[in-house]
Amino acid sequence: MENSEDPLYKVRHSLAHVLAEAVLEIRPTTKLAFGPPIDNGCYYDFLFDTPITKEDFKDIEKRMRKIIGRREQFVQSARPATDAVEHLKSKGQLFKAEYCEELISKGETEIGFYTNGPFEDMCAGPHVEHTGAIPPDCFAIDTLAGAYWRGSEKNPQLTRIYLLAFENKIKLDEYKAMRELAKERDHRKLGKELELFLISENVGAGLPLWTPNGTVIRDALEDFAKEKEARAGYQRVATPHIAKENLYVISGHLPYYKASMFPAMNLEGESNYYLKAMNCPHHHMIYGYRPRSYRELPIRFAEYGTVYRYEDSGALSGLLRVRSIAQNDAHIYCTADQLKQELRATFDLTLSYFKLFRFSDIKVRYSTHDPKNKDKFVENPASWQYSERIVKEVIEEAGVSYVLGEGEAAFYGPKIDFQASTLLGREETISTTQLDFAQPLRFNLTYVAEDGKEHRPFIVHRAPLGAHERFIAFLIEHFGGAFPTWMAPHQVRLISIAEDFLDYAKEIESMLREHLIRVEIDTSSNSFNKKIREAVTQKIPNIAIIGGKEKEKREVTLRRYCTKEQITVPVQEFVNRIVDFTKKRTMDNFPDA
Amino acid sequence: MENSEDPLYKVRHSLAHVLAEAVLEIRPTTKLAFGPPIDNGCYYDFLFDTPITKEDFKDIEKRMRKIIGRREQFVQSARPATDAVEHLKSKGQLFKAEYCEELISKGETEIGFYTNGPFEDMCAGPHVEHTGAIPPDCFAIDTLAGAYWRGSEKNPQLTRIYLLAFENKIKLDEYKAMRELAKERDHRKLGKELELFLISENVGAGLPLWTPNGTVIRDALEDFAKEKEARAGYQRVATPHIAKENLYVISGHLPYYKASMFPAMNLEGESNYYLKAMNCPHHHMIYGYRPRSYRELPIRFAEYGTVYRYEDSGALSGLLRVRSIAQNDAHIYCTADQLKQELRATFDLTLSYFKLFRFSDIKVRYSTHDPKNKDKFVENPASWQYSERIVKEVIEEAGVSYVLGEGEAAFYGPKIDFQASTLLGREETISTTQLDFAQPLRFNLTYVAEDGKEHRPFIVHRAPLGAHERFIAFLIEHFGGAFPTWMAPHQVRLISIAEDFLDYAKEIESMLREHLIRVEIDTSSNSFNKKIREAVTQKIPNIAIIGGKEKEKREVTLRRYCTKEQITVPVQEFVNRIVDFTKKRTMDNFPDA
Repeated sequence: MENSEDPLYKVRHSLAHVLAEAVLEIRPTTKLAFGPPIDNGCYYDFLFDTPITKEDFKDIEKRMRKIIGRREQFVQSARPATDAVEHLKSKGQLFKAEYCEELISKGETEIGFYTNGPFEDMCAGPHVEHTGAIPPDCFAIDTLAGAYWRGSEKNPQLTRIYLLAFENKIKLDEYKAMRELAKERDHRKLGKELELFLISENVGAGLPLWTPNGTVIRDALEDFAKEKEARAGYQRVATPHIAKENLYVISGHLPYYKASMFPAMNLEGESNYYLKAMNCPHHHMIYGYRPRSYRELPIRFAEYGTVYRYEDSGALSGLLRVRSIAQNDAHIYCTADQLKQELRATFDLTLSYFKLFRFSDIKVRYSTHDPKNKDKFVENPASWQYSERIVKEVIEEAGVSYVLGEGEAAFYGPKIDFQASTLLGREETISTTQLDFAQPLRFNLTYVAEDGKEHRPFIVHRAPLGAHERFIAFLIEHFGGAFPTWMAPHQVRLISIAEDFLDYAKEIESMLREHLIRVEIDTSSNSFNKKIREAVTQKIPNIAIIGGKEKEKREVTLRRYCTKEQITVPVQEFVNRIVDFTKKRTMDNFPDA
Repeated sequence: MENSEDPLYKVRHSLAHVLAEAVLEIRPTTKLAFGPPIDNGCYYDFLFDTPITKEDFKDIEKRMRKIIGRREQFVQSARPATDAVEHLKSKGQLFKAEYCEELISKGETEIGFYTNGPFEDMCAGPHVEHTGAIPPDCFAIDTLAGAYWRGSEKNPQLTRIYLLAFENKIKLDEYKAMRELAKERDHRKLGKELELFLISENVGAGLPLWTPNGTVIRDALEDFAKEKEARAGYQRVATPHIAKENLYVISGHLPYYKASMFPAMNLEGESNYYLKAMNCPHHHMIYGYRPRSYRELPIRFAEYGTVYRYEDSGALSGLLRVRSIAQNDAHIYCTADQLKQELRATFDLTLSYFKLFRFSDIKVRYSTHDPKNKDKFVENPASWQYSERIVKEVIEEAGVSYVLGEGEAAFYGPKIDFQASTLLGREETISTTQLDFAQPLRFNLTYVAEDGKEHRPFIVHRAPLGAHERFIAFLIEHFGGAFPTWMAPHQVRLISIAEDFLDYAKEIESMLREHLIRVEIDTSSNSFNKKIREAVTQKIPNIAIIGGKEKEKREVTLRRYCTKEQITVPVQEFVNRIVDFTKKRTMDNFPDA
């Protein structure tokens, strides 16, 4: 937690002391390490003679509430630094004494302490006035974890007790419920349960393999983007995943981006080759392979290009941090005059995706350059001024609020990031749009204008859906794994109440398959109820139940996953409805769609 | 040419002598090198004192016909080898003398000669009886080229004269016409003219970049294959382009296939990574990541996976030999009992593509193992016997003729190659189907059968459309660049006779675009006739002409590229026709479609 003046900060910080006080009541010989406030409460690290377990939590919490009931005053004091070391050593608090010595070596002459009741801690504060200022039901012990003193494996291992703490019980319960939901919806958990993707030890970390179910989602998203882009005047291109070293020397990725690229493939008697970490250089080769006229502009090259980035293996996590990234990429080459309308169009396209998928809390971050920082940004005052003005106008005319990231632009132009929040409130960038007036120079890209002379185009880099990996991770968590019919790996599950109606089920299956609907009949030996439960567990959006009445009247009983609604309709109407959901890309996983 | 007893071989071989005889008439001091028959005639290599040019061709041909008219007998003789050297030296034929010495060093004791009229050549024959046996109009001098003596750059450079020669004039003219057509239809030439792809010096040889026009063709083909595969019960998967070294150790590609793979990317503190040269190991990871039941089989994993193979840079050519290969790949995992029906289905699928695209001269090559060759083939007599029997049955039941390639199977199972001929008659494999009973062992792939025990599945590797690069190269040449509407980069070109009808043209454009038809209005300042010519040059399948009468009656005059047919139809009928061509994938580039 950053802001120590925040009342919640003080409560959490004070609770760390109350926790330690309670722990010392049942384990008086415990050595104390650090106990800071954190984003959802606080923790305290202890070295126990007798280990503590979850069974002690209730007792500790009860003691904490008693301490709160005692309204112990938080009293600040100070000792000369050398006295403080002696004092801490005399009390057996060797970790604190060690830290105190470190502070002395850095020049501290006086060390602050806080005392409440019998408990004293070396601490800079601030705290609430007295323990009674802490709402007695605003906290709960969360969990135990191991932690090394000062985070180093060479040091003794400590026991960390985590505490959840919020403004009040309602907020605490809300947080617990949300965390439970986030756990249930974790894309790694759902990815496994719904068989969407896998990480294989033999293939490598951060290199997800998409199983049939996951590939349906990828393809659905990709087809959708392709159609939208076709209607918006994009042209698709397809480029290889590798290129000669020289391409990246021209682009400047070598040496500036080298650390994020996979190492070279060294070919004897030939150039080295690199896996591409970006699609832009390849697209520029297509733009530049023949002269271009202003009549052709804007040119919009789109590609679902898979790029490879060498993320540190420790940072890799599910689909959110990967090394193979299938980007919804495009590069728009346009004149200065066309820049605004192109930027507005990409802005609108991006927002239209968010609207469709009902991402409600998208934040826009607009990053500009810092004219004083000549190292970080290309020197081109006129282009910076022009393009930053255009970006600002587009954002403001769109009527969306934004956060300004001064000095956070790309080195080649201003940047717009679209950030979504995870269920736990962590913000992640899912789309980016960047302006670029530097690469046309590096790649000597031009067009012949009406004046017959060669001019430089502007370039817009844009990826409204970011990468498959990250975007689908978000969708999985956002939908809780319940995809709309058009994206669902299994769109319809047919369940026949008895063997007798299987022929009718097969007829319906054929009708749907004719339209390429992903449908299957549950022909297992499971009971009817178990078949329904399985289909629900798999979050299949449409369960069609076939019984005697249905067969006789040529109807289907449709049970919808999202609404639990159950209706009986004529078979043709049922088929039309499923086909309609698919073709119109209805967001029928939301009850109001 | 292989068969020296073939009459055409003798004619071509004899023509080489007649050519040399005629050349010596006008350049008596010429030194002779080799003069063999070849596939389309023969050539002779000469070292001239005075260079020869194309201007001499007519004269040489005239002299050749005179020699033919003289009915000179081909007389065979022999000299003791050492005499032969002296003889050749005395005549100044130092290349021949050198070769003669080489033959002596290899143990020859006697050297053959052929004489016809005043011309003598060291030669093993055979020849026609006399020059009069050569049809006087069956040949034509083709071209001049440079060539080194014995093919080595260290040796003197010679002049090679190529002669075309066939059974008779009709065959000669046919060949010339076909070669002209092949030159016109060369996919590298058309690829450039129609802007389908490019090879970039900065990206690398054998790594084509697909421009918007070429990408339309790729996407059309891919969408078609995806739909066919969806209907045939395939499931799509998506896998990364790289994997850890260990995956290829398991598969055996390392070390056996290493020379065809791009070199490793060496990561510090981590495994090496390789670009994939095949998709199978990745697919096996998906198959094997959880237990499989016989109920799930057959499992058919399909992926348009791009693989990378390190072809020697000298072998790379257009789209036919490349290093990045987008394969129409799939792997079918099935039980022994299912093998035949799966194989038959892939066979039928493959043939259905050829039928649709009207490849008339497909040859099937069925390759079996050689039980005596224990090094080349996995030892598994029962599986070889079973799978070879199944393959043979499937081919024979399909009623197609085939060539047997004994001992040419893959090391893991029998193989079916589908070979198409280029316009010049060169055969190239465009599809392959392979059976595999070795990889399930290497990857420990199993399924639980009805008996509750683990069994090994069979695997069928199949790629009916081979790779995008090669298949599209074939299509370009086969269609002469005139693609059917559903694949054509530009499906409709709207040409308005005058400015006045432009609003109507725009209305039609919107109507078509609503259906995602690739249409544009020619708004250039060109004349009407030039606009038509341009559209024809671009081989656009549908040219829609808009004039006053059309606007008034709400009609369109449609000119079809393939038939030159020109008809006037109501606008809605026109739109429906284009949409129909596209949706039904009509092969409307053939006049009878």
